[in-house]
Amino acid sequence: MTRSPPTACPQDRTYDPGRRVHQVSTQVIVLNGGSSSGKSGISRCLKAILPLPWINLGVDDLIDRLPPSLTDSGSGVAFGQQGEVILGDGWRELETAWTTGVAAMARAGARIIIDDVFLGGRTDQERLRAHLKGLDVLWVGVRCDSVTAAAREIARGDRVPGMAAIQAETVHTGVVYDVEVDTTRTESLDCARTIAKHVS
Amino acid sequence: MTRSPPTACPQDRTYDPGRRVHQVSTQVIVLNGGSSSGKSGISRCLKAILPLPWINLGVDDLIDRLPPSLTDSGSGVAFGQQGEVILGDGWRELETAWTTGVAAMARAGARIIIDDVFLGGRTDQERLRAHLKGLDVLWVGVRCDSVTAAAREIARGDRVPGMAAIQAETVHTGVVYDVEVDTTRTESLDCARTIAKHVS
Amino acid sequence: MTRSPPTACPQDRTYDPGRRVHQVSTQVIVLNGGSSSGKSGISRCLKAILPLPWINLGVDDLIDRLPPSLTDSGSGVAFGQQGEVILGDGWRELETAWTTGVAAMARAGARIIIDDVFLGGRTDQERLRAHLKGLDVLWVGVRCDSVTAAAREIARGDRVPGMAAIQAETVHTGVVYDVEVDTTRTESLDCARTIAKHVS
Amino acid sequence: MTRSPPTACPQDRTYDPGRRVHQVSTQVIVLNGGSSSGKSGISRCLKAILPLPWINLGVDDLIDRLPPSLTDSGSGVAFGQQGEVILGDGWRELETAWTTGVAAMARAGARIIIDDVFLGGRTDQERLRAHLKGLDVLWVGVRCDSVTAAAREIARGDRVPGMAAIQAETVHTGVVYDVEVDTTRTESLDCARTIAKHVS
Repeated sequence: MTRSPPTACPQDRTYDPGRRVHQVSTQVIVLNGGSSSGKSGISRCLKAILPLPWINLGVDDLIDRLPPSLTDSGSGVAFGQQGEVILGDGWRELETAWTTGVAAMARAGARIIIDDVFLGGRTDQERLRAHLKGLDVLWVGVRCDSVTAAAREIARGDRVPGMAAIQAETVHTGVVYDVEVDTTRTESLDCARTIAKHVS
Repeated sequence: MTRSPPTACPQDRTYDPGRRVHQVSTQVIVLNGGSSSGKSGISRCLKAILPLPWINLGVDDLIDRLPPSLTDSGSGVAFGQQGEVILGDGWRELETAWTTGVAAMARAGARIIIDDVFLGGRTDQERLRAHLKGLDVLWVGVRCDSVTAAAREIARGDRVPGMAAIQAETVHTGVVYDVEVDTTRTESLDCARTIAKHVS
Repeated sequence: MTRSPPTACPQDRTYDPGRRVHQVSTQVIVLNGGSSSGKSGISRCLKAILPLPWINLGVDDLIDRLPPSLTDSGSGVAFGQQGEVILGDGWRELETAWTTGVAAMARAGARIIIDDVFLGGRTDQERLRAHLKGLDVLWVGVRCDSVTAAAREIARGDRVPGMAAIQAETVHTGVVYDVEVDTTRTESLDCARTIAKHVS
Repeated sequence: MTRSPPTACPQDRTYDPGRRVHQVSTQVIVLNGGSSSGKSGISRCLKAILPLPWINLGVDDLIDRLPPSLTDSGSGVAFGQQGEVILGDGWRELETAWTTGVAAMARAGARIIIDDVFLGGRTDQERLRAHLKGLDVLWVGVRCDSVTAAAREIARGDRVPGMAAIQAETVHTGVVYDVEVDTTRTESLDCARTIAKHVS
């Protein structure tokens, strides 16, 4: 298992010459997956089974907090007819500040599960990685077959139709993970157990 | 496939000698299954795929509408430490009136998906059957392996822990169905498609 | 205080010559008012303070249960740019069946607070009165100054903008009440106490 | 109007001799008030009327994200029989990290409305002030008569009964504000307009 940045040498963080080897522990868990792939369910299971207290914060939390000026005008977040998500300049500015703050929470000692949707694939991971620099991050890919995700979108009934299918594959393009789970045939709790084994 | 009552001869309802054969169509779909077995997801999928308009009404809708006097005192609905549901006298009276009304909606032309939990198994089915007398009912068993249902209860995070496991088997005791689905390894949408084939 | 129909002589229902004077008690409370006028808050307060158990069912409950075919097509309920509500034929059929059922619940013994929006004013009241025939109904007008209702619509943030202002006056046109409350300067709980005095 | 810290001389921030008068703008709005005093409604109105985009984050958002281990054990947040809130050590640690992060979001450019409940009065304000050091903060007291707040708690129906009355006065003890509003007889939107005049 590698962590953030996966290219870094783990020993750098665990070996402190002249003093002692100190315990390294995971500070952030990033769950990346398309809409209706099952990230929220996994997040709740992780909070229930991990021995230390974790909180969750995700991109949907920021969307829920946007003012009418950003949701009505299209300068923030808008949704297309086919379920595509359109991000405006107003969004990017806010998202950057939001992510800076979430990273600061983690540096201040809160263990955080970030649930995200890398619409831009690898580019989004790199941007997030830069924000989380210095933190011990576990990168998790949450996959779900696109037909299954689209079916779950209908069963939920509260999401913009089409998002699940559009995002299922694209959000993983070029992204590097420490662990991947697939909710197509595995329950959220079992996925969470797999992930938990990688949490130190 | 048989309908309500399963012992009735379908011809009785479709053949009207001396006048004409009239079209019989399903008026009520009863989904019976334990907590976290997936009834709500199936219900939403049915509403999305059935050609005619259906609405859903279930036991949870009544519970959500109970006054504080019935939820605080235990004379309505209460939940035990292990997730058991305790129904008081105040509940029974209200539930009878509620079900009478739901049946009346169906007789007045609304197609209704009733989502229920037969805590008393066959006894509850017989009680509901009496209320729905004369209506064309499709009885559906929604099964889910108890371990899986308990896992989904954790992933949802908004249900009294323990209910899923306790109810998984008992709610089906002695109940007779027209069609049964199992959400353990089948998506809600696929279960809904199976059920839809039995809707006339 | 008069009840349903307000033109009826109360004695007709309480005096039964040759046998005995029997107890009459309110079976249905109808709260009519525009969007954001405060009906839901009053309904919750009534449930908290009335000595007998009451449940609430309203037009919003039916809207929430409509299938996608009725909300997406405009054949059910649609919302205009200015907050106007457009009801299609599919809606009228369902609403009639729904109301028939709610009346049946009340006749079967459930005490029900119906929270409604008489978009058609007096016509809607007459239609509902016909459904509730034979039941002891308390007709309540819930008024709120249109500017105040529009302000509360913004503060809620979860309603179609404009509905509050459009509906504030029109829903009361020609409607006859047993009691009226005005939430503009009176808290929901105080309005509920006023109403409760008329519940027998 | 004074800002954070209220003892600072406003000119210090607007007058920069030798260079130019630069624009100072509010970065954080802190709404402090008891449960059911109307903070959320004011927050939504502020987001609707302020010309620049603002997001809201509050103590309730953190509570909603706590893992079961902190809500079930009492080591996080617990609620007493009379509506009193009991904060454990696990809570304090998390809250400190959370607030650090929210301050970092604001420093990174997000305009944030913090909705808080100073259970400890002035002590809590001082703690928050330390976190927000260097930011231009507008401190707002949201008052509501305790009887009215308790009435609104009943009308909402989703809060622990008793909290509103207990907190109505105590949360303001020793707290210093730039502006105070009282929702007892003033609508959220009007309170928001009053506050908006103090936002630069």
